[in-house]
Amino acid sequence: MAVSAFQSLPGFRDFLPRDFAVRQYLHETWRATARRHGFVEYETPLLEDTELYLKKSGGELSTQLFRFEDQGGRDITLRPEVTASLARLAADHQRHFPKPLKWFEIGQCFRYEKPQKGRGREFFQFNVDLLGESSAVADAELLSVAIDTMRAFGFAKEDYQVRVSDRQAWANFANQRGLDSEQLAQFLQIVDKLERDKAEVLESKLAALGLTLTEVQAFIADPANASESYRILLADLAARGLAEFVRWDLSIVRGLAYYTGLVFEVFDAKNSMRAVAGGGRYDTLISTISDGKVDLPATGFAMGDYVIRNLIEETPHALMQMEVWLQRHQAGCDVYVVVDREEHRADALRLITSLRTAGVAVDYALTSAKLGKQLQRAEQSGARLALIVGEDASRYTAKILSSRSETSFAANDVVEAVVEFLQGPDGPLLA
Amino acid sequence: MAVSAFQSLPGFRDFLPRDFAVRQYLHETWRATARRHGFVEYETPLLEDTELYLKKSGGELSTQLFRFEDQGGRDITLRPEVTASLARLAADHQRHFPKPLKWFEIGQCFRYEKPQKGRGREFFQFNVDLLGESSAVADAELLSVAIDTMRAFGFAKEDYQVRVSDRQAWANFANQRGLDSEQLAQFLQIVDKLERDKAEVLESKLAALGLTLTEVQAFIADPANASESYRILLADLAARGLAEFVRWDLSIVRGLAYYTGLVFEVFDAKNSMRAVAGGGRYDTLISTISDGKVDLPATGFAMGDYVIRNLIEETPHALMQMEVWLQRHQAGCDVYVVVDREEHRADALRLITSLRTAGVAVDYALTSAKLGKQLQRAEQSGARLALIVGEDASRYTAKILSSRSETSFAANDVVEAVVEFLQGPDGPLLA
Repeated sequence: MAVSAFQSLPGFRDFLPRDFAVRQYLHETWRATARRHGFVEYETPLLEDTELYLKKSGGELSTQLFRFEDQGGRDITLRPEVTASLARLAADHQRHFPKPLKWFEIGQCFRYEKPQKGRGREFFQFNVDLLGESSAVADAELLSVAIDTMRAFGFAKEDYQVRVSDRQAWANFANQRGLDSEQLAQFLQIVDKLERDKAEVLESKLAALGLTLTEVQAFIADPANASESYRILLADLAARGLAEFVRWDLSIVRGLAYYTGLVFEVFDAKNSMRAVAGGGRYDTLISTISDGKVDLPATGFAMGDYVIRNLIEETPHALMQMEVWLQRHQAGCDVYVVVDREEHRADALRLITSLRTAGVAVDYALTSAKLGKQLQRAEQSGARLALIVGEDASRYTAKILSSRSETSFAANDVVEAVVEFLQGPDGPLLA
Repeated sequence: MAVSAFQSLPGFRDFLPRDFAVRQYLHETWRATARRHGFVEYETPLLEDTELYLKKSGGELSTQLFRFEDQGGRDITLRPEVTASLARLAADHQRHFPKPLKWFEIGQCFRYEKPQKGRGREFFQFNVDLLGESSAVADAELLSVAIDTMRAFGFAKEDYQVRVSDRQAWANFANQRGLDSEQLAQFLQIVDKLERDKAEVLESKLAALGLTLTEVQAFIADPANASESYRILLADLAARGLAEFVRWDLSIVRGLAYYTGLVFEVFDAKNSMRAVAGGGRYDTLISTISDGKVDLPATGFAMGDYVIRNLIEETPHALMQMEVWLQRHQAGCDVYVVVDREEHRADALRLITSLRTAGVAVDYALTSAKLGKQLQRAEQSGARLALIVGEDASRYTAKILSSRSETSFAANDVVEAVVEFLQGPDGPLLA
């Protein structure tokens, strides 16, 4: 593979045209879903003051930073996630916008992790955030985006599950048992690993806090522990016809320190992958970032591009939908212009320019080539029409490449006729 | 402005929704133009092995790198430009694609420069490259993309100029005067500064190579020195009706070392800014990057987002076109659903979900708000329709916000009626 004297860095992807088209499919689907829900797009910088991330995220993330000193001696970091920057932006600019803010970002993030299936050192993340509303109805609107995103990718209800929890329920649990806030933080880390750690390990960690695994499991199992926020959330989702997509599950707490209330994760139905998406309330983060100057309740979620792509590729109906999209969007052009003899090249260039000016995507052989070779290239290009510029200056022969049939267009209105053809059953223009 | 305890780094931009929409306008216009010309999109990584850039670009660029050591001890750099990565990609993968490759990338690049008007420490660059064709007809196709890009932004012929030159002409000049290849490289650096350096400085630099400013100026002034490649380029552009957009100008040589033949730059007509775009042939770069294993002639150009945005903002007809686009694309939603009393909220949520499922972008007040407040928010949102969910479950009152007129839709086919309304003269759906 590596012919060049250089290789891409481990965990970094080259997006060749097909991979780029897959990426566009993911991004365009994310974008369309967010916009259907009335969210508008923004983007924060790829590099920030390192302190911003240390102050906000802490924990595991701070060991995975692409962190360095720039030529001006600044301690800077490639963003490992977007929420810290969003909090900075919101603190500085929120007063210019009516509330709530419904904002989304599709951006690349960087973490120095071991590259493996479902994880690279860079990834794209779809971030959807709703700032300025503390009621759980805001979380319902976010869950609606998450569920609609899965629907837009072609997933059926059976393909995935959304598990919702509330850190407030655990805060009450901890409070009743006399834990302080530091112990609560430790406790949440233990709950976060309930499904992964062995029972002995869990038992011993919980014992240090004066708790038993049995009482924790009993608390999780009792539906009466569902929080009031969850009830509001569920009633709102029920009105949308979406209640059946979510279930209460106190074992979900999310890793990051800053969550304050409702949290949720989306999993594949087999639960064989990392979470497809996750998020929750972070009502105090903007206050933290602004040293208390702005107090704005907030909730949000993120979906990365690795896991969703794997899940699409492992789900036949979602994969088929993507393939249909790719077939349509990967074509190099709408029309391939064939020059039958070199003395007609100037005519062909004129035609090509007119078609492009009308919005048609056109390709052609740059230099002299046999007719058969040009028609072969036309097929490879994904064009739907090959237009042959030949002897008869008043008409062009046209080969319809999908049906391998032939027609012709009068030269004097060829642009209109081609546009009309392309707007027909063969689908919309590329450009 | 800065309420938060953090600031964005100098030279790095926060794209708030309006700035993001401007950025989308630039990117979508670039993308559509490239696709009309049969180019397909790819993207290379943001980080690469530093050596890739040192080997290829050298010179000034190598002093402006965001360069650092990662946790694995690698010497890595945030890309200052895209062509080096493209050469790596082409060397490794070209054999899987029919030639020529017509590829484009829209990507962010990073240079540690002094932030000022028209220049930041990050910028987006539109890179259009054509690999595998050595004839100047390939350069003509590229120039057609560059000119069509300007047209697509609404610029008239009088707003800008394209100056074309050929390093081969200077190589012949140098050869006739007995300069070796190192002296030629020095000489080209002098020519590159002809318009900026003082005559005395130029005279003294040229004298060191045994040349005079007079003979250099005479060589530039003589149209007979136009190269054969330029003649081929011009004939091709003439057939497209584009010859009048370009002029021969030997004072253009481009700064980077790797150019080998035709080079060009696009300037604003007043020549008051940095070049809007620039590029040229780099027939030996892929061979250099692959240690001679792949030999692929290549030509390409790049356009950054800073200068073109400034030029649009200073050109009234181009600015107006952008504003019209922004007005259409910045709206938060198509339809704002108004909940007249809280007992109708469940009905409203059901309606909202149905509209979104049909592809309509919908927003609404998350919590109880007065009717007037909701209608005000509907206007702010940019929606074209406010749908009021009220007492009569069989009909919805609809306010057409552009004309401030009122109509109503039957509840049983409201989704179809709203979609039809939005596809009418009020323009296409957002999502």
